[in-house]
Amino acid sequence: MSNSEGCRKILLKIGYLGAAYCGFQVQKNAPSIQETVQDAAERVFGKRYPLSGCSRTDSGVHALEYYCTVETDGDANNVPIEKIPDAMNSLLPEDIAVFHAEYKDSDFHVRYSVRSKEYKYVVWNSKYKNPYLKDRAYHYPKALDVCIMNTAAKAFIGRHDFSAFMASGSSCEDTVREIYSASVEREGDTVVFKVSGNGFLYNMVRIMMGTLIAVSEGKIDAYGIDDIIKNCDRSAAGMTVPACGLYLNKVNY
Amino acid sequence: MSNSEGCRKILLKIGYLGAAYCGFQVQKNAPSIQETVQDAAERVFGKRYPLSGCSRTDSGVHALEYYCTVETDGDANNVPIEKIPDAMNSLLPEDIAVFHAEYKDSDFHVRYSVRSKEYKYVVWNSKYKNPYLKDRAYHYPKALDVCIMNTAAKAFIGRHDFSAFMASGSSCEDTVREIYSASVEREGDTVVFKVSGNGFLYNMVRIMMGTLIAVSEGKIDAYGIDDIIKNCDRSAAGMTVPACGLYLNKVNY
Repeated sequence: MSNSEGCRKILLKIGYLGAAYCGFQVQKNAPSIQETVQDAAERVFGKRYPLSGCSRTDSGVHALEYYCTVETDGDANNVPIEKIPDAMNSLLPEDIAVFHAEYKDSDFHVRYSVRSKEYKYVVWNSKYKNPYLKDRAYHYPKALDVCIMNTAAKAFIGRHDFSAFMASGSSCEDTVREIYSASVEREGDTVVFKVSGNGFLYNMVRIMMGTLIAVSEGKIDAYGIDDIIKNCDRSAAGMTVPACGLYLNKVNY
Repeated sequence: MSNSEGCRKILLKIGYLGAAYCGFQVQKNAPSIQETVQDAAERVFGKRYPLSGCSRTDSGVHALEYYCTVETDGDANNVPIEKIPDAMNSLLPEDIAVFHAEYKDSDFHVRYSVRSKEYKYVVWNSKYKNPYLKDRAYHYPKALDVCIMNTAAKAFIGRHDFSAFMASGSSCEDTVREIYSASVEREGDTVVFKVSGNGFLYNMVRIMMGTLIAVSEGKIDAYGIDDIIKNCDRSAAGMTVPACGLYLNKVNY
C-alpha cells in the first residue's frame, strides 16, 4: 500500500552474492551487504535512513531472495516506488541487485514477520573442482550417496530442540525450531540440500549438511539423526561445511 | 601413449574462469592463465618448461574446456601421468582446474592440430542483473527475440571471409574461416549463442553476438547478415559484446 505522509517503510526485495562481504550485518573493517545497500539508498533518498534485514547471513553466504526495509521520513527524495530498483541497481555493485520495492505498514517487521525461510546448500560433487563455481559451491570430491542423505534428512522435519545443530559457543535462549521440509537431490555433479523452517540457529544449515555428508560417508547412521537431535550434543553431529555453498533461497511473510 | 625417454610432451585438459586474468597469454603486469599454470607445472615437475595453449583467449573470457601442452625433458620429476591433475590442482587457485593429463607424440601441436572449436556466449536476459552471474554472463535487460536471432545466426554457417566480424585494427592475413554450426537458444532468462568452426578471428564470436542482438533490436535485418559478410565491412556488423559472457566450450582434435 502507498503511504505518503511522515514515516514510510519501504520493503526491498534484493539478492546478492556474499563472497566479497562479511555477511549482511555491518562490521568494522569489512564491507557488509547492509552498509552497501544503505549507501545506495542514501544516494537515492538524499538522506541516510535505518536499514534492517530479514536474516543475519554469515560471511560468504549468498541470498537469491532477501528482504530489507528502509525507514524513510518526510525528508526523503520523492522517488516513485517503481523507480527505486533501477535507481538503486545503477549505484550498487554487480554482486547485489534490487528486484522490487513496495511500501509497507508500520506494523510490518522485516525480521519478525517472516513466517518461513528456505535455505539451499550446493555441493559440487565431482573429482575435480569446477572453476565456474568458485565461491558458489562447496567442492566435495568423493561420490555422495544422495539417496541415503535424503532419507536421513527427513529426521530434521518437525519441531525440535536443535542445539546439537548450533555452533558451539553461540548464545541462544530458545533453541527450538520447526523444520517444514528437508530434501537432498542430485542434478549431474551438483548435489543440493534444501531445508525450510520457521527459523534457523547459528550455522544450523551448514551443520545439518555436514551431518548428511557424514551419513553418506558411513560415519553417522542414516537413522541416527533422531538421537543426535534428542541428545542435544553438538559433538555428535557432523562438521560445519563452508559458507560458500549456502544460499538463502526463499523468504515467506 | 606413454613415452618415457627424452622429450615428453604432456597434454593437459584444463578449465578456467577468466575473470581475474588478462587472458591465456602471458602479459606484463597482469596475471595470465599461461603463467599461473606454468608456475604450478614448475612445482610439480621441478623445472620450468615451455607451456603452449590451444587458443589465445582474451582478458575476462572463460574456458570450460581448454588444452595446453608442457614440453618436459629427461630432467622432469618422474610424476605418474595419472597423478598430474591432483598434483597441479592442489597448487592452482580455485578458478583454474586440471581435468586430465596424457602423453602426446611430438607431431601433435596443441594449436595447429585443433580440428574445430565451439564457443558459447551467455546472456542474462532479464530486467534486473543476476548477482550469481557476476563476471559469468552479459546482462541485457530488454527481451531478446531468440527465434529471429536463431534464424539470423544460420547465415554464419559455411566458409566465408569474416573480416566484417573481426576487431578493427587487428592484423590477420587470412580472414576466411569455416563455421559448422550456429544457434541461439533460451532457457528461462538465460540466452545462449553457440557457434562451432575451424577457427575464429579476433573478437569474432563477440561481434557475431552483438550482431544477433542488433537483429533482435530491429537495427539489422534478420536476413541482412549475408550482405554484411559479403561486404567485409566491420561497421555494418553489431557491437562487440563484453568478454564476461564468452566461454570456450569444446575443442576437438
